[in-house]
Amino acid sequence: MTEPGASPPFTLSREAHSIRRSMMRDLIAITARPGIISFAGGLPAPELFPVDAWQAATDRVLTREGRAAMQYGPPYLPLQESIAALMAQRGASVEADQVFIVTGAQQGLHVAARLLMDPDSPVVLDRFVFTGVRQAFGGESRLVREVDNGPTGTLDGDGLGAAFDARPSPRVIVVVPDFHNPVGTSLSQNDRRLVLQVAGQHDAAVVEDDPYSWISFDGRLSRALVADAPERVLYIGSFSKIVAPALRLGWMIAPRPVIAKLRVIKESVDLETSGLTQRVAGEFLASGALEPHLGKLRRAYAERCAAMCAALERWMPAGTRWSRPDGGMFIWVELPDGHDTLAALEPAVEAGVAYVPGQAFASRPAARTMRLNFSNATVDQIGVGVALLGEVLTHHTRLAA
Amino acid sequence: MTEPGASPPFTLSREAHSIRRSMMRDLIAITARPGIISFAGGLPAPELFPVDAWQAATDRVLTREGRAAMQYGPPYLPLQESIAALMAQRGASVEADQVFIVTGAQQGLHVAARLLMDPDSPVVLDRFVFTGVRQAFGGESRLVREVDNGPTGTLDGDGLGAAFDARPSPRVIVVVPDFHNPVGTSLSQNDRRLVLQVAGQHDAAVVEDDPYSWISFDGRLSRALVADAPERVLYIGSFSKIVAPALRLGWMIAPRPVIAKLRVIKESVDLETSGLTQRVAGEFLASGALEPHLGKLRRAYAERCAAMCAALERWMPAGTRWSRPDGGMFIWVELPDGHDTLAALEPAVEAGVAYVPGQAFASRPAARTMRLNFSNATVDQIGVGVALLGEVLTHHTRLAA
Repeated sequence: MTEPGASPPFTLSREAHSIRRSMMRDLIAITARPGIISFAGGLPAPELFPVDAWQAATDRVLTREGRAAMQYGPPYLPLQESIAALMAQRGASVEADQVFIVTGAQQGLHVAARLLMDPDSPVVLDRFVFTGVRQAFGGESRLVREVDNGPTGTLDGDGLGAAFDARPSPRVIVVVPDFHNPVGTSLSQNDRRLVLQVAGQHDAAVVEDDPYSWISFDGRLSRALVADAPERVLYIGSFSKIVAPALRLGWMIAPRPVIAKLRVIKESVDLETSGLTQRVAGEFLASGALEPHLGKLRRAYAERCAAMCAALERWMPAGTRWSRPDGGMFIWVELPDGHDTLAALEPAVEAGVAYVPGQAFASRPAARTMRLNFSNATVDQIGVGVALLGEVLTHHTRLAA
Repeated sequence: MTEPGASPPFTLSREAHSIRRSMMRDLIAITARPGIISFAGGLPAPELFPVDAWQAATDRVLTREGRAAMQYGPPYLPLQESIAALMAQRGASVEADQVFIVTGAQQGLHVAARLLMDPDSPVVLDRFVFTGVRQAFGGESRLVREVDNGPTGTLDGDGLGAAFDARPSPRVIVVVPDFHNPVGTSLSQNDRRLVLQVAGQHDAAVVEDDPYSWISFDGRLSRALVADAPERVLYIGSFSKIVAPALRLGWMIAPRPVIAKLRVIKESVDLETSGLTQRVAGEFLASGALEPHLGKLRRAYAERCAAMCAALERWMPAGTRWSRPDGGMFIWVELPDGHDTLAALEPAVEAGVAYVPGQAFASRPAARTMRLNFSNATVDQIGVGVALLGEVLTHHTRLAA
């Protein structure tokens, strides 16, 4: 019999030995107490999920072509075509066969990392970056060069240059140009050009991770990096935030010569993405359900973001800075010197409000930072939660001082 | 602009350079001509998919708990409980928290390989093995030790001993005890005990890959290896063959100490498996829809298998041997000396019938072997297709001689 916690009677891989559960998962578990106002997770608003439209699309697909939908099969061309049309909204001219369907954006990150990186390859990441990016690109022996990012959203051009000038030369840079997780900001046109230019000078690939750009509050969509450098950019899109996470459906846009390789890598991970989900998503998009749904999302998230910014203005300790996103789901907060968001988390949770300490997204100490999610709380909850947070932070710092 | 086939302006990983599209995928593409009778793919019978029951279960889930079903979330406990009950049918006493949900069995193979194998680890595989197993466990620098398998289904005990006696010592053996793909046979009770005994003597992990055992023609279910050695076996089950491939839903049973590590590895690959699919599968199982569906599958596949065996008896060249499966989806054919199933494929496809040459499942020449799938053709098609195949093989060998 195996006792819980006992070592198995066989050898694990070096990777398995080195594995640690990500700090963010632990923190989110802590914050999942009933009754708490949570700004911690990265959850879309469930009350806005297009449940009825998804159900209707599922019914139509299963009634019309249930047998084909439940079988193994190639990527579903009508979905690829609809995604190509979405990419045209972002300035990218893409053929359906350049749309590579993946089982969620995390799978896109995984296959991109395996396509581009050897175990010891150098990669350029943001200093504060979504943990899934770090898991995919920043394994144990990887050389991770970091470029500072923070609440202003301005690219650290010197840091970028230094990251690329170091030897061995980085092969890959991962960027989130729009409504960055965790910092909430977007790159300016100039900064976008700079990323492409520096990567081009160093023959590096650019991974454009884009879960959020369609959640632009005013509905204006940025031009995707892949539109300007299709030969160099591997673009990763996702339906998790703009439709629903449980679809586990995303896509990549990549140069044709690498798509054949991505296909073999993906095969080894999960054979193929559900043809049923692909067909239902195709039906959902073809029915025109996405655009009105995005309209609702944009209005609701804009309102929640504005409420959070107003509450931060009112309740945060003097000297606190935060990003002012034009879209997405997150605000990044940088407190004055002396604050410790990791230490303040427990009293905050006791008081009834949760967030993610910035440390969870960083490879080195970042005591003054935190990520706040505004998509998964009502305007009222945001008002109350930020007030509680302000009180805890002010009090906690006074105690610590 | 990127020209098709041009090299991208960035460096690919060593893995990406070494990637070749699997021979089987190419072959299956060749054989996908309209009008052909195909024994090539590994497709379940689409006319037997439980489309109505799946649609009804989806409707109930989305109506009852659409918001929760479309959100991110932990593994769905009622599904884990239903799977634990399924495992009890196989003699395994399993708690729900030992059921690790994966996005199809291929993902199970991938995460198991990452849990157990370093890039240069030795592994014991069957000589003829499903390509997905080889992709997951047999990377470029892996030391693959092979144990012969073939139409009789008897384990090559000497080969097994030799594979484990070689140095460095293998860490892992992958076995498909029931209705093996491609060879169609099952291990005897003695052979099962021998595998566990030899693996135990060498502190090796046993990966039990089990997509087919519930498709036992007479409905009698074998005892799973994991029932007898829960501390040593990582079991991988799948709904692809017993419900439908497009669910992309499978499960693992593993010792508790390794499940925490599997969870982190899985997170890096696709975050989590669709909560919507998990809930619909849970609903489908709870409604009792699986057992009558399995009854239909067993009757239909038994009939098709019997038809194929009878046709092989009538039409194959003298001296041909084949496996006589008691379940699953495949028959393995070993032709007499002088046959070349790779060379005969094109004339066979011309004549209107397709199969997979055994070579596709092997690391070294296997000219006399082929895999025939019987689940995706009617009894009539099987009669006609095997007759055509017999004619081509007889004629082709005469020409070559």
